[in-house]
Amino acid sequence: MLVRHHFLSLDPYMRGRMNDTKSYTAAQPLGEVMGGGTVGEVVESRSPRFQPGDKVVGMGGWQQYSVVNAEQPGALRKVDTTHVPLSHYLGAVGMPGVTAWYGLVKIIEPQAGQTVTVSAATGAVGSAFAALAKARGCRVVGIAGGPEKCKYGVDELGFDACIDYKLHENAASLSKALKEACPQGIDGHFENVGGMVLDAVLTRMNAFGRIALCGMIAGYDGQPMPMAYPALILTNRLKIQGFIVSEHMEVWPEALKELGTLVATGKLRPRETVAQGLEAAPEAFLGLLKGKNFGKQLVKLI
Amino acid sequence: MLVRHHFLSLDPYMRGRMNDTKSYTAAQPLGEVMGGGTVGEVVESRSPRFQPGDKVVGMGGWQQYSVVNAEQPGALRKVDTTHVPLSHYLGAVGMPGVTAWYGLVKIIEPQAGQTVTVSAATGAVGSAFAALAKARGCRVVGIAGGPEKCKYGVDELGFDACIDYKLHENAASLSKALKEACPQGIDGHFENVGGMVLDAVLTRMNAFGRIALCGMIAGYDGQPMPMAYPALILTNRLKIQGFIVSEHMEVWPEALKELGTLVATGKLRPRETVAQGLEAAPEAFLGLLKGKNFGKQLVKLI
Repeated sequence: MLVRHHFLSLDPYMRGRMNDTKSYTAAQPLGEVMGGGTVGEVVESRSPRFQPGDKVVGMGGWQQYSVVNAEQPGALRKVDTTHVPLSHYLGAVGMPGVTAWYGLVKIIEPQAGQTVTVSAATGAVGSAFAALAKARGCRVVGIAGGPEKCKYGVDELGFDACIDYKLHENAASLSKALKEACPQGIDGHFENVGGMVLDAVLTRMNAFGRIALCGMIAGYDGQPMPMAYPALILTNRLKIQGFIVSEHMEVWPEALKELGTLVATGKLRPRETVAQGLEAAPEAFLGLLKGKNFGKQLVKLI
Repeated sequence: MLVRHHFLSLDPYMRGRMNDTKSYTAAQPLGEVMGGGTVGEVVESRSPRFQPGDKVVGMGGWQQYSVVNAEQPGALRKVDTTHVPLSHYLGAVGMPGVTAWYGLVKIIEPQAGQTVTVSAATGAVGSAFAALAKARGCRVVGIAGGPEKCKYGVDELGFDACIDYKLHENAASLSKALKEACPQGIDGHFENVGGMVLDAVLTRMNAFGRIALCGMIAGYDGQPMPMAYPALILTNRLKIQGFIVSEHMEVWPEALKELGTLVATGKLRPRETVAQGLEAAPEAFLGLLKGKNFGKQLVKLI
């Protein structure tokens, strides 16, 4: 099949692939097309399972077209754009949404009435996390950068409170803000950032709290990023678990179904930042790593 | 009942109770008998369930006798000294043994052929851990202080290898020694110490490794003890879980049964260091925190 890409997804994990170090995926090979999630439509097909015009999501990479073997399992997935815009299949109803779902449902396992928190709260993962946690009766508190994002988190995404980490110079100060926003303590936390944010959250975790460790964007450029108080894991009998959503394909159908319903019913209204054209992708990607995007960062390709 | 204590158990958790900070148990109140596990025998009893001469284990504290209400659930447990010496009910067939069991069986969940490691390897917990892990077909590598302990670990406790951490000035050096002793990497780790040892182990954990966090004795005096590379939890999709064995009483019967059988059949031959008399307890306790004891630290009371 020949697939024309409408949107390319930009995601923090791509930064890790640019380091030539041992990690959960191989480093991005030099001289090859940079990998990445794409949504688009089938232009030509020799497979009876796909017709020209079909809307599809796949890993087409940083390019406008890709040639895909339809028989390769999982290479492409047909999607329905009746109630969900095509681009959302790269965000809330795609990998970032399932990432939030896995961390919340499989690691944090919250009960109604518990308090959960998430960093990078207004990004693609954080937005989905808020809707999923509210649907489970939790108090949800976000941590984001800047007053505009925090206001958006509360007004549009359903966070009960959202803390601007940029107002805090150190973990002790952020910890005080968390205490105010989480008067019952924190039962579950979804970490996308690491560093000062994780240190502060650890000081507010309740006994038997769970932390889903999904990203540590604060350390992606190689700077040292120690955890200040690991003894709190013991004294509060915490569980901290790292995960990669692509290793848990078994949950995707259930997760995508819930996320699609949340979007279709207006309970999850994710915002997008769209860069125009492939030539704008590198700068948009650097901006994403600095938190300049608002919601899901996409590149419009065609 | 009036109970005469034969032995008092000294355990690292007691140090935590001497700090007046938020933790999983209340701080030791001043002016009251210091808490602690004891084994002894019933001297007088008004309960039909206990007779004078019965051997019992309980929390009698740092004293020679205690008066116990036999009707209080779990206050005293009768033990059989036919095949297991009384003192071992404070060690391998007691709280430290169950601690090792819980961390190994419920958190690490090892498979045969996997490699597991434990720090403070020749102490009461580490000794039991080795026997339990060998019984499950694991390669078991200990980390202990000094050549004598390491030799004892391999010769008597069944460790496949034992690393002397005192030969290593930093985590990088210890990490190299771990690489040699664990050529297939580490799948599960039981942490009693924290600090440099935990940092080094983290660098050798395999993907999906599990770390049971039971003690961080390196930080009990309040010194800062950051974790150097928490990003490894993410890149290797690790689980780190803190636990307190007294919160999992449901596993004690199963664990004690296995531990008692291991001792009775000679597969677990724990060593003991015995201080003579209550007046020797404080110095013995300080020695325990510095690793001066060899195996389980006890105080002979009467």
